[in-house]
Amino acid sequence: MIRTAIIGATGYTGFELLGLLSRHPHVTLDYVTSRADAGRPIGALYPTRQPMVLSDVEALPLDEIDLLFVALPHAAAAPFVARGLTAGCRVIDLSADFRLRDAASYRQWYGADHPAPALLAEAVYGLTEWARPALGDCRLVANPGCYPTSILLALAPLLAAGRLADATIIADSKSGTSGAGRAPKVATLFAEVSDNLTPYAIGHAHRHSAEVEQEMAALGGDAAPRGLLFSPHLLPVTRGILSTLYLPWRDALSEAALRDLYANHYTKEPFIWLLPAGETATLAHSVGTNRCTISLHPVPERGHLIIVSTLDNLLKGAAGQAVQNMNVMFGWDERAGLTA
Amino acid sequence: MIRTAIIGATGYTGFELLGLLSRHPHVTLDYVTSRADAGRPIGALYPTRQPMVLSDVEALPLDEIDLLFVALPHAAAAPFVARGLTAGCRVIDLSADFRLRDAASYRQWYGADHPAPALLAEAVYGLTEWARPALGDCRLVANPGCYPTSILLALAPLLAAGRLADATIIADSKSGTSGAGRAPKVATLFAEVSDNLTPYAIGHAHRHSAEVEQEMAALGGDAAPRGLLFSPHLLPVTRGILSTLYLPWRDALSEAALRDLYANHYTKEPFIWLLPAGETATLAHSVGTNRCTISLHPVPERGHLIIVSTLDNLLKGAAGQAVQNMNVMFGWDERAGLTA
Amino acid sequence: MIRTAIIGATGYTGFELLGLLSRHPHVTLDYVTSRADAGRPIGALYPTRQPMVLSDVEALPLDEIDLLFVALPHAAAAPFVARGLTAGCRVIDLSADFRLRDAASYRQWYGADHPAPALLAEAVYGLTEWARPALGDCRLVANPGCYPTSILLALAPLLAAGRLADATIIADSKSGTSGAGRAPKVATLFAEVSDNLTPYAIGHAHRHSAEVEQEMAALGGDAAPRGLLFSPHLLPVTRGILSTLYLPWRDALSEAALRDLYANHYTKEPFIWLLPAGETATLAHSVGTNRCTISLHPVPERGHLIIVSTLDNLLKGAAGQAVQNMNVMFGWDERAGLTA
Amino acid sequence: MIRTAIIGATGYTGFELLGLLSRHPHVTLDYVTSRADAGRPIGALYPTRQPMVLSDVEALPLDEIDLLFVALPHAAAAPFVARGLTAGCRVIDLSADFRLRDAASYRQWYGADHPAPALLAEAVYGLTEWARPALGDCRLVANPGCYPTSILLALAPLLAAGRLADATIIADSKSGTSGAGRAPKVATLFAEVSDNLTPYAIGHAHRHSAEVEQEMAALGGDAAPRGLLFSPHLLPVTRGILSTLYLPWRDALSEAALRDLYANHYTKEPFIWLLPAGETATLAHSVGTNRCTISLHPVPERGHLIIVSTLDNLLKGAAGQAVQNMNVMFGWDERAGLTA
Repeated sequence: MIRTAIIGATGYTGFELLGLLSRHPHVTLDYVTSRADAGRPIGALYPTRQPMVLSDVEALPLDEIDLLFVALPHAAAAPFVARGLTAGCRVIDLSADFRLRDAASYRQWYGADHPAPALLAEAVYGLTEWARPALGDCRLVANPGCYPTSILLALAPLLAAGRLADATIIADSKSGTSGAGRAPKVATLFAEVSDNLTPYAIGHAHRHSAEVEQEMAALGGDAAPRGLLFSPHLLPVTRGILSTLYLPWRDALSEAALRDLYANHYTKEPFIWLLPAGETATLAHSVGTNRCTISLHPVPERGHLIIVSTLDNLLKGAAGQAVQNMNVMFGWDERAGLTA
Repeated sequence: MIRTAIIGATGYTGFELLGLLSRHPHVTLDYVTSRADAGRPIGALYPTRQPMVLSDVEALPLDEIDLLFVALPHAAAAPFVARGLTAGCRVIDLSADFRLRDAASYRQWYGADHPAPALLAEAVYGLTEWARPALGDCRLVANPGCYPTSILLALAPLLAAGRLADATIIADSKSGTSGAGRAPKVATLFAEVSDNLTPYAIGHAHRHSAEVEQEMAALGGDAAPRGLLFSPHLLPVTRGILSTLYLPWRDALSEAALRDLYANHYTKEPFIWLLPAGETATLAHSVGTNRCTISLHPVPERGHLIIVSTLDNLLKGAAGQAVQNMNVMFGWDERAGLTA
Repeated sequence: MIRTAIIGATGYTGFELLGLLSRHPHVTLDYVTSRADAGRPIGALYPTRQPMVLSDVEALPLDEIDLLFVALPHAAAAPFVARGLTAGCRVIDLSADFRLRDAASYRQWYGADHPAPALLAEAVYGLTEWARPALGDCRLVANPGCYPTSILLALAPLLAAGRLADATIIADSKSGTSGAGRAPKVATLFAEVSDNLTPYAIGHAHRHSAEVEQEMAALGGDAAPRGLLFSPHLLPVTRGILSTLYLPWRDALSEAALRDLYANHYTKEPFIWLLPAGETATLAHSVGTNRCTISLHPVPERGHLIIVSTLDNLLKGAAGQAVQNMNVMFGWDERAGLTA
Repeated sequence: MIRTAIIGATGYTGFELLGLLSRHPHVTLDYVTSRADAGRPIGALYPTRQPMVLSDVEALPLDEIDLLFVALPHAAAAPFVARGLTAGCRVIDLSADFRLRDAASYRQWYGADHPAPALLAEAVYGLTEWARPALGDCRLVANPGCYPTSILLALAPLLAAGRLADATIIADSKSGTSGAGRAPKVATLFAEVSDNLTPYAIGHAHRHSAEVEQEMAALGGDAAPRGLLFSPHLLPVTRGILSTLYLPWRDALSEAALRDLYANHYTKEPFIWLLPAGETATLAHSVGTNRCTISLHPVPERGHLIIVSTLDNLLKGAAGQAVQNMNVMFGWDERAGLTA
């Protein structure tokens, strides 16, 4: 049993993580913090029988913690990541602070200097299925964004095979509102979201674009795509992301070879569900699980391949992938605590 | 054509009223105000082609206005009502400030002294179908609450006939979230309301209880009911209220006599839809219209009468009834501007 | 490990049960049947990785089965219950066929003669928390209806204490659409249910009225209530039932004594969540769990007690309670397979 | 006043049309038909006070009708279109039967020989804003599909300007469930659609692909695009279509020139709402109106233009555009009956 804590447990992601860790067979969850609600039980904020009481982050005894989860907004997270590492904790950061490897890029997309640039070099981008070798010994994991996870898992076999050189990838993504957080805003009120669909930050304006492009370059190497066109839409659902990906498909790879390529990577993966030909991924394939479901739809008569990818933004897109990364970091069965 | 203005046009009720008045055949809508958004077009706040620009309320030339609509929160509304009356406007107040006739009762339920008690005596409680004689000459209309409208219209024929003496009335009401306003709160976020149903202030705790009990007493006179048990529930819909009413039913009134009683009052009403035996009111009967739909369900083998009543909380429950009241005040066809 | 089978696994209840049993630590799920879809994998009907293939019910080797679950519509279930018992299986019937103890009552409410009246006498009404002594040795469990479970668990402490003598109980219940089954009908299409709320069979017309009244009489004995007024409403949610119960409350029981009475019965129950004063049960307290959440709301100034009760209609209201009953029947930890 | 009738008035489109025509200032709606429900009032099928009674189509006196609307499924519609024309009616067909100009294409996409190929040549494809010259004198209008209307209105200015030569257009479209009709199916049950998002017939498999490609070729002429990649998704809303369009954008047209091009075509259109730079079309911009809302999003750094287009699938995507077409056919104000 290792000892864990969550800094920032009252947002949707933090609360999901609280649930996962409190049922995990190999960890104790010793502290959960909240600045605004310190001293209150988590049951005062959510309809849960979970009895934990929120602590003030400043009172957190970091030296008692083996693994620290940070679930704060970007910029707020990095200082606590640094403190955790200094105190000897390993850290999984669920914010965006350590996803971009380059401090200049961070400044460009997040509009401020990086709060802890010295730590960028050692952070491991934790897209679990593609990051295992680096996770075992690392101190710091940058847990990927929800949209990037849905897009990158769908593209990775083609990227790694060098099949997307020079392509512009189009990702038309649709997300539930829990991804927008629990801080009240007009845009996420029921009366605004229900019966509606809202595209936002479309084109090349959403911060996750930078994250996807960085990782496409890393996975693609010399044969990396040219770039990403990314259009998120706010769906009238609470959980789930569906990304519909459009890729130019003019080369010689047959459909059979394509399916083999994906099967070779993903058939044995516990949290990737590769659908057979003729089936299409929907939110219902993934929501409530740590799975990413992927379906492949070649359209040779129009020179494109469409890939549909779905996941639960709070599980495989956030807290679930964090637990999966923990399982790899500590050498446990990767499914521990995630199969309920 | 009369000249109108709305104080507080950016909430859901105010915006609904803006739409109704801007299409009304007998009025011009000259000013709409918002303290927070003065200077901005209404199109910056809602996806509408309506071109009006919000004014600051302090700049409102009250002497140019014939009829003033006040759509502010309680306590905030009364001072502007008073200013409007002083300037010679007639006023329809959509807040709760003039619904309770008694300043002591206001203090008890709203937790503060009434801001303009001298005006209470002349305010007409604008449940249109039962208030017409008083509306013609009045200066000030207290537009009823959404829940009270749904409950009182369903009970009024029995109340007026003295058939509910000493009864305790049970009103189990369910409302869409637009009734809770557009100010962001956790409780009305999509992720909290969707897939959920939330009772609140049940029993005798909601302010609308006092309003209904006052009007039950007024309509019932010597044969008024003993009181109301009122349980509102927040529904995962944007618009609509459905009230399921339970009344003891042990007297000699036959089902035929009951239906006749309601038919005599309501068959010719343009905005009451009395359903025939065998049909049940649903939200879909009323939402998007200014109607109150009512169905009667005697259950003699269990000694009760059930009445189901539905309306659109932003129309018959707020802005629509305000326009209906205006139509009566000025002697126009009561349906003007409301039948689209 | 015991061997189990489900007859009728493709409806929402049967599929939920399939999921629970396939993850249960003490059973193997050996057969799942469907007349219409025999030979197809369950994954052809639902987005699930569960690999079981549906069998034809006629090919089911009943002599290999220890415990048979029947999840068919009423009237269709009873013949298979009889066959299972004859073959030596113990049986949990999730239909309504063995809930009413009296064949005449069955004929009145279900409009046909009972298909297997000789078995009525031995069926145990499986409201688990109140049925444990009878469950241990029984052959046949009649799993309660979803609405009755929500109503009876909320009333049982008062019934057993004789505190509801001669009362007429009012149950205003609201249910998600999964309770209406997966057979397509206009009334359960998304376009009909969304943005709507539909009361149906209100008063004393729904079959679950008879079931509740029977059990109120059984629990109440000489001090049983006079009867039930029951109004179900179809909610725009998929899962969950919330019942708002209105009880006359004119006797000498104090609020403290009331809360003690409930606490004595329920504090140690793993699947009853009794909320403290000041909190109100919502769907979110129960959906996705096998819990029934109960909150008590005395309204002495209006002579009533309100109780709010919520559960997940597919879990505590159907498949979850069936598994809970199985756990008691076989002497296992009552939470086995239900705490995920 | 002209005399009109609707063949097939009980589906969502037919019922919407019934509402529009019954409030239209220049027509009488004399007959509405339904084979399955002949003899019943429309109020037995929908919660409406509209009193019309459904007729059997065989009893329809076509010689009394000036304009016949046919709202039947494809293949069922064409024979009635032919009968209407023979009887001297003008006809607006809301089915797909006369949208494809070529009988061979119809056979390929609809899997059967065209029922009335002799009439194909004279049918006018009624995308109103681009079809006015042909509508004045025509006898037969093929009312466009809902998805094609959303896509073609968004592309038409570029197509007509020859700016999309050789491009492959990607249309990622999302639709509410009313577009799937009122015939009950598992796929459109509330419990399947809610909390879900389902892509279907993606790539080049949906019949509307053929319709869009035909009209892209017609509008584009020598500079027509190469083809369409079309991915519809079923949204958890009842009404509305949002199409996100991806166009290669490598030529010399500046953003200012692009906006001028669209403004020149659309600024004066009553039913096209062209949003200014910085705003994005959502369902809420269009649902409940006959509008198509369009926003332009150039992404020069990724070589693409994104266009977002929204409409109400039952109004501008079906019944509303049918009325708009009627208004042009008869020389009335194009907004008649459509601005409520």
